Amino acid sequence: MKIFLAQINTVVGAVRTNTGRIIEFARKAAKKGGDLVVFHEMAITGYPPKDLLDKKEFVDDNIAAVEKIARACPEIGIIVGFVDYNPSAEGKRLMNAAALTYKGEIVAKEYKSLLPFYDVFDEGRYFEPASEVRVVEYGGRKIGLTICEDIWNDKDAFNVTAYHFNPVEELTKQCAEIIISINSSPFTIGKLGLKRDMLKKLAIEYNVPIVYLNQVGANDSLIFDGASVVIGPDGAIQAQAGMFEEDLIVYDTDTGKGDIRDIPAGDIEMVFKALVLGVRDYFRKCGIEKAVVGVSGGIDSALSTSIAVEALGSDNVIGVSMPSKYSSKSSVDDARKLCKNLGVEFKVIPIQKIVETYHESLSEEFKGLPQDVTEENIQARVRANILLALSNKFGYLVLNNGNKSESSVGYCTMYGDMAGGLAVLSDVPKMMVYELAGFINRSKAIIPKNTLTKAPSAELKPDQKDEDSLPPYEVLDKIITAYVEESRGIDEIVGMGIEREIVEKTVEMINRSEFKRRQMPPGLKVTTKAYGFGRRMPIAARIERRR
Amino acid sequence: MKIFLAQINTVVGAVRTNTGRIIEFARKAAKKGGDLVVFHEMAITGYPPKDLLDKKEFVDDNIAAVEKIARACPEIGIIVGFVDYNPSAEGKRLMNAAALTYKGEIVAKEYKSLLPFYDVFDEGRYFEPASEVRVVEYGGRKIGLTICEDIWNDKDAFNVTAYHFNPVEELTKQCAEIIISINSSPFTIGKLGLKRDMLKKLAIEYNVPIVYLNQVGANDSLIFDGASVVIGPDGAIQAQAGMFEEDLIVYDTDTGKGDIRDIPAGDIEMVFKALVLGVRDYFRKCGIEKAVVGVSGGIDSALSTSIAVEALGSDNVIGVSMPSKYSSKSSVDDARKLCKNLGVEFKVIPIQKIVETYHESLSEEFKGLPQDVTEENIQARVRANILLALSNKFGYLVLNNGNKSESSVGYCTMYGDMAGGLAVLSDVPKMMVYELAGFINRSKAIIPKNTLTKAPSAELKPDQKDEDSLPPYEVLDKIITAYVEESRGIDEIVGMGIEREIVEKTVEMINRSEFKRRQMPPGLKVTTKAYGFGRRMPIAARIERRR
Repeated sequence: MKIFLAQINTVVGAVRTNTGRIIEFARKAAKKGGDLVVFHEMAITGYPPKDLLDKKEFVDDNIAAVEKIARACPEIGIIVGFVDYNPSAEGKRLMNAAALTYKGEIVAKEYKSLLPFYDVFDEGRYFEPASEVRVVEYGGRKIGLTICEDIWNDKDAFNVTAYHFNPVEELTKQCAEIIISINSSPFTIGKLGLKRDMLKKLAIEYNVPIVYLNQVGANDSLIFDGASVVIGPDGAIQAQAGMFEEDLIVYDTDTGKGDIRDIPAGDIEMVFKALVLGVRDYFRKCGIEKAVVGVSGGIDSALSTSIAVEALGSDNVIGVSMPSKYSSKSSVDDARKLCKNLGVEFKVIPIQKIVETYHESLSEEFKGLPQDVTEENIQARVRANILLALSNKFGYLVLNNGNKSESSVGYCTMYGDMAGGLAVLSDVPKMMVYELAGFINRSKAIIPKNTLTKAPSAELKPDQKDEDSLPPYEVLDKIITAYVEESRGIDEIVGMGIEREIVEKTVEMINRSEFKRRQMPPGLKVTTKAYGFGRRMPIAARIERRR
Repeated sequence: MKIFLAQINTVVGAVRTNTGRIIEFARKAAKKGGDLVVFHEMAITGYPPKDLLDKKEFVDDNIAAVEKIARACPEIGIIVGFVDYNPSAEGKRLMNAAALTYKGEIVAKEYKSLLPFYDVFDEGRYFEPASEVRVVEYGGRKIGLTICEDIWNDKDAFNVTAYHFNPVEELTKQCAEIIISINSSPFTIGKLGLKRDMLKKLAIEYNVPIVYLNQVGANDSLIFDGASVVIGPDGAIQAQAGMFEEDLIVYDTDTGKGDIRDIPAGDIEMVFKALVLGVRDYFRKCGIEKAVVGVSGGIDSALSTSIAVEALGSDNVIGVSMPSKYSSKSSVDDARKLCKNLGVEFKVIPIQKIVETYHESLSEEFKGLPQDVTEENIQARVRANILLALSNKFGYLVLNNGNKSESSVGYCTMYGDMAGGLAVLSDVPKMMVYELAGFINRSKAIIPKNTLTKAPSAELKPDQKDEDSLPPYEVLDKIITAYVEESRGIDEIVGMGIEREIVEKTVEMINRSEFKRRQMPPGLKVTTKAYGFGRRMPIAARIERRR
């Protein structure tokens, strides 16, 4: 049996467009002699559709689409993810479903058993889990059809929820000859290796090939890497799709062979490609062409601009330098050089005059008071207003350049450098910003050397350096990873060899900055725990230190 | 048996403070001869603790607190909500629990069976449901101990999830003589009546008294109204606590009698008190004293300022008028009059000069282009920057005055009038703003008459009126209620008698404005569906109209 893995990029909510894309790829697979073509979890609705699922019209349209697909491509078996109504009156109204269509009809419907409800996943909010699983017969074979989390139940490997039920075990008991797993599984650093180890272990344990099909493309914060794969019963890779791009690959169950595409070699290249896809899809799916970026001469904006150019093309990116009296001359020069290297339009709009008018207007209120963070924030907010004015006038989307280290500790200005339509680097810690900058410059010095080597500074007061207010980024990033990503306690982090005072102060800063992050633009997720939807924290709360 | 209902206000995360408050109230109840005192769901952690539950230290501290409470008040039975570890290795790691302590020990622990995950509720994210329920014996009586959602399983009355199991039925089968229900059930308009009808029905059906104890106080967006109550087996109210304030009332199971407090009579008074509590607790729990409000002379800011004065006291509110060249003279006068009536400090900081400096700085970029929304937004953002500068310099929290009608259709400026630390009216539709203003003025004209009667205007360009861009608010609010709160489809809304073109245009505006609302400040929830945490919508999505 020739199975095609259709790794496509769908748009959340766009049932009609997605259905068209599914039909297009199914026909391509049929033309190439495929017996079966597989699409991802909730391919018809796009994933995650979130509360669009509350709209009956939307659910009805997605169900009608399955029938349309069946009729449009009768010549090939199609497995496709969609949302079905729960046939029972009890429990949640909907189920996360996979249909098998053939000869114009829906031949089988199977439901997801294990619903993820942690981090960014909310499936328990919408769906009732399957009450049973059954193998599906197609082309004389018994297929074990599973949806995403259904195969993520390796109690040794993962620690999120120990589910009560193992669908793969049950399906192999029912003599499934092949497991087909349809997924909408987002990228995070290091997940590919974990996932493949788990698939390998499963394939060997149950002595079946596993066809793992994942969606590709970014939807808001989530970046889906694709990397669809077939693992043979011996644990070897028998077919492999590309990463971060649409693909259509074949796998022959008789020979155990299939297409094998190249994938990026290392984490940093993957993160870079993930961010590029994240930016590109956000713009495309929002219907926006051009980005405007504040280029400060610093490394964050240099990286963010480079990513935007890769994602949108240099014609679609505008760099704006907005010097104040605290900006060094080299800042403007570095920004200009960067834009020149990237082939990007470069503007200089000084902010000093505007800033001074604010000072004048507030002089009575502030009489006799020393300058403080207020005056720093005014500058940052004036810059945001300039970018937003360009955005309003020309339809650009403002990119936010803030990194994860800054927003963790609140070293950023609300409605200032925190403004923007998309936060490109919000889940990238500062040390990784440097690694990514190194990747950008791997063959040519795109990002100016001075940008890479100078000490990080917000340039909002004379001779300011980040490290005047923060621990060194090497240390800061370690604390953030331990506290935010790994939920470690203070004692445990001190046990890693970091001074208690620094740990306590940093954790306090992280907790206290929740109100700032609440109003952050959506940001691209690349680590196991990003700020935003997957980390839900109270604001008007008091996390009391143990005594 | 004398049961005390301790309706207290806890702080999320503040295990030590909450424990102290619980002990204080338990001792008070003991002193008054109580046999049993009841506290709310998750009283120890505060509700909702959200992802603080990922921190092992936090969960451990909350468990230690139950033991501390038991030891501190051995003389009275105490029922208190906390978070326990799941004794099973399978399933979610935690359980939503109630402890009964007596004579220094934990006598019983019961778990929540029905976990809400819809709207603002995420309990399935953290908790494993109870696998069984058992009556608890105390003082010679069989008590059916339930937690919040456990009693919300009336398939006739509610429509959210039809649960598979009915804990109250099971407990009465086990001969429970009384049902004690501990809750953290937030206020929404109209819920009190529904809730009481349901309790009444339950009490009659199972022929038991129901002690319903709810928390009071606001945590971020959620406002808990208290309104704890005891319903007798005949459906009559036998005891009733106040609303929107802490209370300690007694109920005697032998006589079927208890304290009965007054509660507000109508919805509008309740909403007003809810918003006041929402503002007061947000400030108190964030540790902030003073609010700064932009007072435009319009009705939204007048209402918001009035609520702030009621919540924080007139000494703790600063009103700022920031006229531009499009502001009418009466706007400043109306704002001044309002502040005078409220006894609030009033400042005038004109923005025209700053706005002009922006125009100059952008003149080259904008050469030859007509004025548009860009210039309007600059004004709104300059105003925000002024308020934020005052906030930074003096430690004020900026109140956001936007109403639900505006943010629904995106008739508001990001980082402009959308800025602020707390959105007081974000869940109040414009027509209800008028009703609330009427309530403020019920005995005295606090809000100037001109503010109440003039046509709503953003005053960002000459002779601008809201209704130039929007349908009349009567119509707009109907569409918002139907589409957002009730998830109705376009055809259904047209069927309500509103012109199709207006419905389609409005729905399109609502969908298209999601990116703006994503960066809104936290707002106080008073309707069944508020923007924010309880309404999770994608941004880079395309909701395709049916053809």
